Amino acid sequence: MNRNELISLIKNKRSFLCVGLDSEIDKIPAHLLSEKDPVFEFNRQIIDATIDYTVAYKPNLAFYESRGMSGLQSLHRTMEYLESLSSSCFTIADAKRGDIGNTSTQYARAFFDKQASGFNFDAVTVAPYMGEDSVSPFLKFESKWVVLLALTSNKGAFDFQTTDDIDGNKLFSRVLMTSQKWGTSENMMYVIGATRAEMLSDVRKIVPDHFLLVPGVGAQGGSLDEVARYGMNSDCGLLVNASRSIIFASKGNDFAIEAAKEAALMQVQMEKLLLEKGII
Amino acid sequence: MNRNELISLIKNKRSFLCVGLDSEIDKIPAHLLSEKDPVFEFNRQIIDATIDYTVAYKPNLAFYESRGMSGLQSLHRTMEYLESLSSSCFTIADAKRGDIGNTSTQYARAFFDKQASGFNFDAVTVAPYMGEDSVSPFLKFESKWVVLLALTSNKGAFDFQTTDDIDGNKLFSRVLMTSQKWGTSENMMYVIGATRAEMLSDVRKIVPDHFLLVPGVGAQGGSLDEVARYGMNSDCGLLVNASRSIIFASKGNDFAIEAAKEAALMQVQMEKLLLEKGII
Repeated sequence: MNRNELISLIKNKRSFLCVGLDSEIDKIPAHLLSEKDPVFEFNRQIIDATIDYTVAYKPNLAFYESRGMSGLQSLHRTMEYLESLSSSCFTIADAKRGDIGNTSTQYARAFFDKQASGFNFDAVTVAPYMGEDSVSPFLKFESKWVVLLALTSNKGAFDFQTTDDIDGNKLFSRVLMTSQKWGTSENMMYVIGATRAEMLSDVRKIVPDHFLLVPGVGAQGGSLDEVARYGMNSDCGLLVNASRSIIFASKGNDFAIEAAKEAALMQVQMEKLLLEKGII
Repeated sequence: MNRNELISLIKNKRSFLCVGLDSEIDKIPAHLLSEKDPVFEFNRQIIDATIDYTVAYKPNLAFYESRGMSGLQSLHRTMEYLESLSSSCFTIADAKRGDIGNTSTQYARAFFDKQASGFNFDAVTVAPYMGEDSVSPFLKFESKWVVLLALTSNKGAFDFQTTDDIDGNKLFSRVLMTSQKWGTSENMMYVIGATRAEMLSDVRKIVPDHFLLVPGVGAQGGSLDEVARYGMNSDCGLLVNASRSIIFASKGNDFAIEAAKEAALMQVQMEKLLLEKGII
């Protein structure tokens, strides 16, 4: 999906919500465990319940890889299901990959090249530690995106990402500045955690046009209004992710209904913010 | 495998060679492509040919994930084959993972918890960008190891890893210093590329006891003698990886024999270095 298509999707759905499919088998409702593929069935019902309010889905690979081959099977089924739907959405493999050049090419095929791997994600999250040649192989795929980690939403973000370098730039700022030369706002986004929304204004000084994938709203405590205030640009420029607060809104038989309610609540807030900014 | 067992293995095999199973299907000998699982068959023959000279095998996940489910199947078969052998070896999932705490717990299960995922690696490579809570979940597994990226062997290593911070420490030095508080030399190693072997003496000032996983010898041009001179400690403290220079030593029917020769050559050099240091 290219940038214009993504912006159209946001305008049409009046939402910039990304739902994180962190579908841990130990946390899904017990009544699903008798299904042939409980995690796929959970995802399918979550998708059906939320897709009207959602522009992007982001499965985190860890929750599938932890179940070995059967976990990967659940993820393949989920992605096939998403492709079969008439309502389109942007898909992000939250995989936080990154390796030397010839190896990152293989990771790119793992997520972008359906013929090779079976997967056809629109985007993949990548860690910046190994530098340009670990990122650029992903950028060779047309209408595919790298979502580069810049400032994450966890406690450990303060271990290295916010360290000042000799020029007075924090590491995440240097990542933003340096990586801009590798791609464009047509094929790169950045992860910026909502738990420090005020830093979004610093981020916007460096990358005014790029989309930002913002985790940390919801279960992790970030505020949607603050994220929009400091981070929204004239194309919206935001995908705000919520995972647990939506998909585990209820652990009972009503989990899909409760997920729909949570997603709808966020969509309503997002629509208001998009209207205020004159984007829709 | 714990540290003492690893050191015993090095002494018994008179080697600190790690063979990288970067088994790209487009590069394996053509005659194997008629096999039911060509990549497994390639790995099996490479393992048989090299195991006498090798203390560790390190499949890079990218080369398996790029082939989707069938790639993962090849990797599962490879790991089962390694476990079935009487000659023991240390196994490293070169996966360069790292995510927020609850997610890294899932990645740890993906590589360490055989009942959950089918995999039972001794170690996994982890990227440090997201800090402590992205690393510590891996350290809760007994006799399992994190191999943390510090200074990698690729060109992009100079983008961020060697940037001086405000205290005059390069980022990789800060990673070494900070992460020492997270684990011990019994459950953490570091990736230090051989392509800048002279930096190993700086590394040893910070982490005198830890094992270092050193890529970049062989196809990438690093020197084994220099790695040993600057990086070896009294327990050896090194696992030197070679991938392409061994597994793709020949692309003909003689690939296994040529791989054995390359591995044997390295083992002879390593034995000499271990003798010189009085370790064996």
